[in-house]
Amino acid sequence: MKTAREYEESLRKLNLNVYMFGKKIENVVDDPIIRPSMNAVAVTYEFAHRPEFEDIMTATSHITGKKVNRFCHIHQSTEDLVKKTKMGRLLGANTACCFQRCVGMDSLNALSMVTYDCDQRCGTEYNKRFLKYLKYVQEEDLTCDGAMTDPKGDRGLAPHLQKDPDLFMHVVEERADGIVVRGAKAHQTGAVNSHEIIIMPTISMREEDKDYAISFALPSDTEGITYVMGRQSCDTRKLEDGKIDRGNQYYGGHEALCIFDNVFVPWERVFLFREYEFAGQLVEKFASYHRQSYACKVGVGDVLIGASQLIAEFNGVAKASHIKDKIIEMNHLNETLFCGSLACAAEGHREPSGTYYVNALLANVCKQNVTRFPYDISRLAQDIAGGLMVTLPSEADFKSEEIGPMLEKYYKGTDGVPTEHRQRVLRLIENICLGTAAVGYLTESMHGAGSPKAQQIMIARRVNMKEKVRLARELCGIDRGDQLR
Amino acid sequence: MKTAREYEESLRKLNLNVYMFGKKIENVVDDPIIRPSMNAVAVTYEFAHRPEFEDIMTATSHITGKKVNRFCHIHQSTEDLVKKTKMGRLLGANTACCFQRCVGMDSLNALSMVTYDCDQRCGTEYNKRFLKYLKYVQEEDLTCDGAMTDPKGDRGLAPHLQKDPDLFMHVVEERADGIVVRGAKAHQTGAVNSHEIIIMPTISMREEDKDYAISFALPSDTEGITYVMGRQSCDTRKLEDGKIDRGNQYYGGHEALCIFDNVFVPWERVFLFREYEFAGQLVEKFASYHRQSYACKVGVGDVLIGASQLIAEFNGVAKASHIKDKIIEMNHLNETLFCGSLACAAEGHREPSGTYYVNALLANVCKQNVTRFPYDISRLAQDIAGGLMVTLPSEADFKSEEIGPMLEKYYKGTDGVPTEHRQRVLRLIENICLGTAAVGYLTESMHGAGSPKAQQIMIARRVNMKEKVRLARELCGIDRGDQLR
Amino acid sequence: MKTAREYEESLRKLNLNVYMFGKKIENVVDDPIIRPSMNAVAVTYEFAHRPEFEDIMTATSHITGKKVNRFCHIHQSTEDLVKKTKMGRLLGANTACCFQRCVGMDSLNALSMVTYDCDQRCGTEYNKRFLKYLKYVQEEDLTCDGAMTDPKGDRGLAPHLQKDPDLFMHVVEERADGIVVRGAKAHQTGAVNSHEIIIMPTISMREEDKDYAISFALPSDTEGITYVMGRQSCDTRKLEDGKIDRGNQYYGGHEALCIFDNVFVPWERVFLFREYEFAGQLVEKFASYHRQSYACKVGVGDVLIGASQLIAEFNGVAKASHIKDKIIEMNHLNETLFCGSLACAAEGHREPSGTYYVNALLANVCKQNVTRFPYDISRLAQDIAGGLMVTLPSEADFKSEEIGPMLEKYYKGTDGVPTEHRQRVLRLIENICLGTAAVGYLTESMHGAGSPKAQQIMIARRVNMKEKVRLARELCGIDRGDQLR
Amino acid sequence: MKTAREYEESLRKLNLNVYMFGKKIENVVDDPIIRPSMNAVAVTYEFAHRPEFEDIMTATSHITGKKVNRFCHIHQSTEDLVKKTKMGRLLGANTACCFQRCVGMDSLNALSMVTYDCDQRCGTEYNKRFLKYLKYVQEEDLTCDGAMTDPKGDRGLAPHLQKDPDLFMHVVEERADGIVVRGAKAHQTGAVNSHEIIIMPTISMREEDKDYAISFALPSDTEGITYVMGRQSCDTRKLEDGKIDRGNQYYGGHEALCIFDNVFVPWERVFLFREYEFAGQLVEKFASYHRQSYACKVGVGDVLIGASQLIAEFNGVAKASHIKDKIIEMNHLNETLFCGSLACAAEGHREPSGTYYVNALLANVCKQNVTRFPYDISRLAQDIAGGLMVTLPSEADFKSEEIGPMLEKYYKGTDGVPTEHRQRVLRLIENICLGTAAVGYLTESMHGAGSPKAQQIMIARRVNMKEKVRLARELCGIDRGDQLR
Repeated sequence: MKTAREYEESLRKLNLNVYMFGKKIENVVDDPIIRPSMNAVAVTYEFAHRPEFEDIMTATSHITGKKVNRFCHIHQSTEDLVKKTKMGRLLGANTACCFQRCVGMDSLNALSMVTYDCDQRCGTEYNKRFLKYLKYVQEEDLTCDGAMTDPKGDRGLAPHLQKDPDLFMHVVEERADGIVVRGAKAHQTGAVNSHEIIIMPTISMREEDKDYAISFALPSDTEGITYVMGRQSCDTRKLEDGKIDRGNQYYGGHEALCIFDNVFVPWERVFLFREYEFAGQLVEKFASYHRQSYACKVGVGDVLIGASQLIAEFNGVAKASHIKDKIIEMNHLNETLFCGSLACAAEGHREPSGTYYVNALLANVCKQNVTRFPYDISRLAQDIAGGLMVTLPSEADFKSEEIGPMLEKYYKGTDGVPTEHRQRVLRLIENICLGTAAVGYLTESMHGAGSPKAQQIMIARRVNMKEKVRLARELCGIDRGDQLR
Repeated sequence: MKTAREYEESLRKLNLNVYMFGKKIENVVDDPIIRPSMNAVAVTYEFAHRPEFEDIMTATSHITGKKVNRFCHIHQSTEDLVKKTKMGRLLGANTACCFQRCVGMDSLNALSMVTYDCDQRCGTEYNKRFLKYLKYVQEEDLTCDGAMTDPKGDRGLAPHLQKDPDLFMHVVEERADGIVVRGAKAHQTGAVNSHEIIIMPTISMREEDKDYAISFALPSDTEGITYVMGRQSCDTRKLEDGKIDRGNQYYGGHEALCIFDNVFVPWERVFLFREYEFAGQLVEKFASYHRQSYACKVGVGDVLIGASQLIAEFNGVAKASHIKDKIIEMNHLNETLFCGSLACAAEGHREPSGTYYVNALLANVCKQNVTRFPYDISRLAQDIAGGLMVTLPSEADFKSEEIGPMLEKYYKGTDGVPTEHRQRVLRLIENICLGTAAVGYLTESMHGAGSPKAQQIMIARRVNMKEKVRLARELCGIDRGDQLR
Repeated sequence: MKTAREYEESLRKLNLNVYMFGKKIENVVDDPIIRPSMNAVAVTYEFAHRPEFEDIMTATSHITGKKVNRFCHIHQSTEDLVKKTKMGRLLGANTACCFQRCVGMDSLNALSMVTYDCDQRCGTEYNKRFLKYLKYVQEEDLTCDGAMTDPKGDRGLAPHLQKDPDLFMHVVEERADGIVVRGAKAHQTGAVNSHEIIIMPTISMREEDKDYAISFALPSDTEGITYVMGRQSCDTRKLEDGKIDRGNQYYGGHEALCIFDNVFVPWERVFLFREYEFAGQLVEKFASYHRQSYACKVGVGDVLIGASQLIAEFNGVAKASHIKDKIIEMNHLNETLFCGSLACAAEGHREPSGTYYVNALLANVCKQNVTRFPYDISRLAQDIAGGLMVTLPSEADFKSEEIGPMLEKYYKGTDGVPTEHRQRVLRLIENICLGTAAVGYLTESMHGAGSPKAQQIMIARRVNMKEKVRLARELCGIDRGDQLR
Repeated sequence: MKTAREYEESLRKLNLNVYMFGKKIENVVDDPIIRPSMNAVAVTYEFAHRPEFEDIMTATSHITGKKVNRFCHIHQSTEDLVKKTKMGRLLGANTACCFQRCVGMDSLNALSMVTYDCDQRCGTEYNKRFLKYLKYVQEEDLTCDGAMTDPKGDRGLAPHLQKDPDLFMHVVEERADGIVVRGAKAHQTGAVNSHEIIIMPTISMREEDKDYAISFALPSDTEGITYVMGRQSCDTRKLEDGKIDRGNQYYGGHEALCIFDNVFVPWERVFLFREYEFAGQLVEKFASYHRQSYACKVGVGDVLIGASQLIAEFNGVAKASHIKDKIIEMNHLNETLFCGSLACAAEGHREPSGTYYVNALLANVCKQNVTRFPYDISRLAQDIAGGLMVTLPSEADFKSEEIGPMLEKYYKGTDGVPTEHRQRVLRLIENICLGTAAVGYLTESMHGAGSPKAQQIMIARRVNMKEKVRLARELCGIDRGDQLR
């Protein structure tokens, strides 16, 4: 397993084509805006080497029997699934942001099942290819970007009916040695911190769309791939002189648009090719795993709750009953999210391929709550923090010779607490509620791994309504009559 | 294991002293108001004999190695705890009410730990006594009432400071062969359907209250015990001629006040006697187990969701998008409750006694949601049901020669559905939202196993706030400085 | 204006055809189940004679210049509309139930506008007829039932397409002296306490449905009209010996199905006849007025809040911060409802007929909140009340010589408070949360004056989305360009 | 009345001492970060000259009889109060941000009452001074900053017990010609766009704090006053080359810390001086008016709803039922806020001074909802907007020659809508939900005019609990007995 330093060095060797603010970035690893997100991924490497986290962060490969980073592991039991949930919370709590690597883990696990099922039904050999690829990922301890969301253009039209055929990723040429693809994937979390990019289709498909029913993996710096960084609220604070105003001093996340302009994929890296009937299954499997992954937000919630407690203490109001009640409510909501991710893991089951899959109904229930409770928790944090969170002068003002001393004087809180500490924790709360981390904690809790409506549709499909109706009919006497059993 | 019929017969042999509507009930088993609650307990016996439920409903006794009803079992693994959750949902779904027997199971499990811990610390021999008692319960397959809540009088005063010393159950005499106790336990679910009653203290205690720190078990028809039935919304509908208006045709629940007027307890049935320092632990252990037990409400929710779907179909609106959305939301909330109960079970652990105990934080989180979501689900059911749920004429009107035909005519819904079916399902919804079952589904979801504030206090205690504050301090740079690890 | 006693006497003179529990009721006024609802209507008469309420309860007729009960008044100003809101709260607070008379007031006001508008457009003479009828109602100080909701059968079909043509009220014969109608109206609040019944269509209609586009008024005991009482949760408690268990000692509400079996209506009582294009307007006007009328629930909320405060005091927990917070939240929600009803009144305007009409958007917003907040308030009341609300023995038990004294002893609360007081207030809370008054406070808050979806549709229609889109386009620079004005 | 241009010119003449990012700002009016907030205030001048808004934006001075900008007016009727509510919504809708000027209006109105009442009780002459000052403000059409919130230091201590006596504003010297004061006021909305600053105490006071019980007004550029700008989320986007990424193209808000370092106030500008018993009343009066003022957020909500509708159309999903339902819910919540502000205005009353004062209970209820619903509306907006709101590349990327065309291609939405329009509306939503406007729409909705707890305390004080308890006692028969009236 790579160390954090080795991970960083491995990234330096990549030749990525990345744009931000209209310019190509020459040194991605050291770019001040991207760096914090690289730092967050690095924690997934660092923690795997810490003895106290070994059980959570590592696993034994079912293909090589070697110890691997859990992010490269195929789940072999419900215990593995439960540990995945706990790993997400642990890393979320230690970075207070998106650490980006779960999307690759979820892609690998989904492919381990779907390639197997497809082979069984269609006589293809995707699973063998996939396992070879998996071995490479495990041995090199790679970070993979799992890429699903196409731009989609007019949402009312199927892929093959779009005015511009590229609005969904598709095959443009089939060669003896591989295929050529074109299209784009949007909202790619952690893309420029990844060694590999794993492409999956974004919706269920019919035969007419078979050119769009493709899955494959490529090195992230393959020729023809371009990344355009999405901008985040308060992103440019990372370019400022001081560090306090960025809130989270070390970590962040990022998303990028990944454009594939006639990119070649060798056959050994192709995992689905025109078997359109498996597109939907791949989407659903990946989505359910990824909905479980939102346990990471419980970890971010831990930090926000801790920060709220801290500012309450600095403000001298931590003992007020309404403050204590709000902290309890934040915890209650946060742990309810945790219950969802734990439950869908504990209720997982073995699929034909041998991979353990989460309970899809509960995974969707879990994510549905993630689209709601972080907003409530954030609101309560703002309630506790007070208005100062959004009216505090800049770090430069605090450091100014002329007005700095006055700010020190007037922003003094409880005795014994340096004004700077108050400033720092307010900036951290701002970061999670309105700043760069709000992108991950709020809006992406809403839309990542599928928007709320997507989960609602899955809940409707997965729930056994027939049995519920049967019970109701029986108990009100429509079906059973007067007799007890 | 007893069959349902054997259970009923065993109850007939009891000589209970029960009052209702100001009169002593001579035949408890056949009383029309009590009978449905006996029917619900009987299902816990019946299902244990059905092969399809064997895994959920039975277990292997850790003391005798024999198959026992899970309600008499001491949990030996997290799997046992998870099965307990599923058993609760299964029975709730098949009775649409409180089946009453979990309170005994939770008492037995709590005592299995606390008697052991007390013996270890104080050199007592409670655990041996308890195991002997347990063997008896398992072999006779008994239903036990677990009795905790004292009347409490002035809630601001400790037991020994109450004006009337009996407002908490206490020892009034210590004899060679046992003790004599006085007091009462309120809100006793299923009391008059039980063979045994297991008494536990209701709060943490100090030395001054040691006469109140007692736990013991007695046959329910022991001399000196009087039961007064609590009345429920719509209870007397069970006395009416027709059956439709009661909604749930077969099942119900009940609560009673149990009064102990100088009742003698032999030593072999005493499990705690003045070891006041274990009173709080016994309360907390029982409460956590019992908060998990509210998985039963998920089962009741299943029925209410099924009934809502059914009435939507009968009304011809099941395809309206707002109806479908409401059904999804009901399911989402219901499954969120299930996640809580599953998660606290799956995260259980082995205690020194060998008994597996739930994760207490998550059990409290589970119950806290139970104090909220059934109210939301019930509100949505009323939304879907329409006003007719509360304006429908009585069954007697429908059966009247004069106006019955007109009611048939004017209450006709979708083609092909008998008006009576519509009537029946509306009465079932009414039963759960406003009637006898609302007592269990709503108000007791609120207060059973502790009121919301009790869970909030436990959440505050169980959450690791120090770690959360540490994380916040570190990430905003108060503690770590500029350096990354 | 009639006194309460005169009102009661006038009812005795009616010859109503009423069924309940399968039997014809010979003496409606003294029937123990109906009596409390008559008592509630009587308060609308009594308060009109009390000097302290004169300003709220009475008005000056715009047709006769005489003082009339406000329930018979046509609103002549926004002040009138605001007073209507306050009258609703006042009476709700003094009866803790539905006092039934607003539905007639809202019908009269809606007809005052629609008959005028129809005459203007179609050259009819409905307004003249209506004003003559209004004069009669005002001078006799009558209670009118405003009847809108047809049974509707298959909700997917228009009136004329129903299998049974009677599932919407319609003309079956046109005569020289009047018309003959057949059909039914469901959920008729206060029907058997009314002197008159005013029929209105229930939906917008097209030409094919013109036989259904009718409005008229008749004495409630007209030949051919049959009433069937809807049953309510806990209705039969009113038949029991004691009075305590009914909770509300004096007042209640009722709904009935009103069946019109070939009933003759003289022309002078017909206010709409086949002018189908005015059916929708009449529905909307009545509905908006009636949505404002739900200010009455604010009054019921006042009682429930008071009862919650009282039980908290009796339980000795009124000073606990979480109890105080819950009381505040109940008040906050209750006053938010009040704001809605006040705002739609204060923003009312004069229609061409001279009648003042509420702001329809805000009236719908008001009612939409009424479909939500009473459920929250009720839930908080149950939280404060404690489980005893649903486990308290019956009044007969308390009065029993054998067990009464023990109940007195064990249900004693705070020093100085008689156990009976605790019993009474718990029964009142039960009455509003689960019993007969819950029918009005909860389910009818949901569905009365239209179900939640009906208000949502009206909100969508009434809101000026074009202007909102215009503002957004302008401010993000799509329309305005770089230049400020 | 000044025009917008005259207002701008008048600001240029001020010699303000303003700091931001550690530097003194030489040209406040043209500073790119401050400019949008000045633009927003300018709209309050511009709209007063537009005939269509004359009724809302202007009033007739009760002291001069001249037409004045409503922001300088003392309310003379409930109609005035209602128009104030509508003015707030109008301006909020046309700026989508805080237009800052209401705080001065609310200060003037509160002082008009409190100076009068103080004079009546204490024989002072504050009201005369105040009216002279008011005349000046009206004739010059000035923008006033109303300054209440002191830094407060340790919140558990009274002003005179603070370690640093300056943490509450206080008198440091009393002279023949006036007083000298020291201290600071935090969170001063619109401070550097104001001609005047009006100081009020921040809490109720006792005699020991009488040096802190002061109110006065000064020109904003008085010697000794320093302003330090608070920074906002995304503030520096206003410094970037392009304009699109700022979202709101023209308007914004700001807050500043105002430091008073031994500032001299002439007697004619002093409105309260050590009459500590009026400090609390001034706080409450100002706070209630200002809680009404949050009608402005309804206007911001209008824009956010419009933007959500627009992006739904651009995404091609505007007809999906769940999107329509969410738009309706946003409108419902927004109009509920409007109802609160309207209701407290319509229920206003005349105070002894002649000024009309809002209904304080309902004003607090209004603001309490403002601390909640904008968060819900914002969450729904993010749900509708989709993840692109936080992953969209920068304007510079879109304008880049190399990657701009690819972004155009892949971010294309519905046919016929330029990609740039989609970009613009997403940035506007981001601005309100996470960016500079979120400061006003969310966090300041929470804390401005008092944090949620402050309103809860006022609701508890203003509600008539005695009457509610009386009603409950009566209806359950504790007080009235068996007899009806």
